[in-house]
Amino acid sequence: MQNLGYYNGKYDLIENMAIPMNDRVCFFGDGVYDATYSRNHIIFALDEHIDRFFSSAGLLKIKIPYSKEELKALLKEMVRKVDSGEQFVYWQVTRGTAMRNHVFPGDEVKANLWIMLKPLPVKDMSQKLKLITLEDTRFLHCNIKTLNLLPSVMAAQKAEEAGCQEVVFHRGGRVTECAHSNVSIIKDGVLITAPLDNLILPGIARAHLIKMCQEFDIPVNETPFKLDELMDADEVIVTSSGQFCMTACEIDGKTVGGKAAEIVSRLQKALLDEFLEETKKI
Amino acid sequence: MQNLGYYNGKYDLIENMAIPMNDRVCFFGDGVYDATYSRNHIIFALDEHIDRFFSSAGLLKIKIPYSKEELKALLKEMVRKVDSGEQFVYWQVTRGTAMRNHVFPGDEVKANLWIMLKPLPVKDMSQKLKLITLEDTRFLHCNIKTLNLLPSVMAAQKAEEAGCQEVVFHRGGRVTECAHSNVSIIKDGVLITAPLDNLILPGIARAHLIKMCQEFDIPVNETPFKLDELMDADEVIVTSSGQFCMTACEIDGKTVGGKAAEIVSRLQKALLDEFLEETKKI
Repeated sequence: MQNLGYYNGKYDLIENMAIPMNDRVCFFGDGVYDATYSRNHIIFALDEHIDRFFSSAGLLKIKIPYSKEELKALLKEMVRKVDSGEQFVYWQVTRGTAMRNHVFPGDEVKANLWIMLKPLPVKDMSQKLKLITLEDTRFLHCNIKTLNLLPSVMAAQKAEEAGCQEVVFHRGGRVTECAHSNVSIIKDGVLITAPLDNLILPGIARAHLIKMCQEFDIPVNETPFKLDELMDADEVIVTSSGQFCMTACEIDGKTVGGKAAEIVSRLQKALLDEFLEETKKI
Repeated sequence: MQNLGYYNGKYDLIENMAIPMNDRVCFFGDGVYDATYSRNHIIFALDEHIDRFFSSAGLLKIKIPYSKEELKALLKEMVRKVDSGEQFVYWQVTRGTAMRNHVFPGDEVKANLWIMLKPLPVKDMSQKLKLITLEDTRFLHCNIKTLNLLPSVMAAQKAEEAGCQEVVFHRGGRVTECAHSNVSIIKDGVLITAPLDNLILPGIARAHLIKMCQEFDIPVNETPFKLDELMDADEVIVTSSGQFCMTACEIDGKTVGGKAAEIVSRLQKALLDEFLEETKKI
């Protein structure tokens, strides 16, 4: 298959799939998701993504009607059905199907499981990103990977219209994260990245970046930083599941970073190697 | 028909309707809605709801592929297909159907129009509401009636579990609105209600309440008020499209209001009369 859409046991090409109008996603965006990449039909960092997925669902009291092991087995099975080995591997759970009512449906209504797979390689890390900054007007639950993504949609469109690839959000000058990535900086040999709280997603690529810094004895400072520190950083690093360690060359039209290229290059190589090793053909 | 679901020209019982997996509502909650009530198959305050609907869509740059007149005609036609004259009349538009990507799809992708009708009478205003209060953790676009409703869903569930009917949101003590209603107070003969900004929905029932106060020479003060003023108010009034002017008797387990019953009673009667008059059998 060229791609795959899955819903509660049925699957087909995504464009052929339909879901009930009363799925609570349709009226409330009432669900959570997670996503990673596969290579050679092997899903990268699956345990970590499954753990985060169950955590997101738990925070919203959505009961996933599968165990972690069952879900992992299902994802592995579906990934093998798609021709391309290099896939974007996406799944979500929504709080069941019932007539529109804000209050949760009864326990007899089970959550719905969705999978969406499409060919997509991880990003080439030699590319440099252009970013814009925007006030972060999102809700205060950014630690949960929900389907309420309108502010990220609007931000992504603004970046696109500015000829840029991502948006750096900030709350009154304090940098939080990007519209669909985390953002960190390197300054004087130290990686500075916002701490995990309700303002940012606990990014798995961010966690891998931190772990790799520790392996290389690069100090890590998990502390909030400001817009002026971002603009003045030696390097600006954007991380997400398909972009292990991208650097920015421009923010709001001003040149940034490029002053710790050797550190970045070591981190990029190590993070790519980790991906290639975990997803190598058996 | 007992109820009706409509999607881009097709309609059936809601529970029989299906929508494409790639509708952007499924991944982003990327859409806006509006809702009102009908009686005798006549839709109440339709012009105002249609105006707000187009305003919500415009703020998110969603192009509704119909004129206001076309949409009104379609809603009136669909309302006649449902047996019950007393209906909850709900419609929404989502930003088209395309493979998941935060950035808007191209102009060739048209927005999707949805309608959902179900039997439901407007609320009996002699009932008194029990409320709870919660910190308002929503995004800063509450003036737009979007499908990103997770915080309202979680709040409604908390109210339900507390044996209450609604939640009063506040930001650091400043009362904003309820999870799916506006909230106002009466104190010393004056109606006090939060001003229209990005923290609250411009409620149509709220506008009718204000207009009715003006007709009765009840002074209206559109200014932010605090939690302690809410608890100490002569009356606490909750308004939404199906609840023209409900009063609260209890907030967080404490008795509130009930000290300006005569004013409330006049407003309730006038607002109900307005509804009955506009929706009377021709």
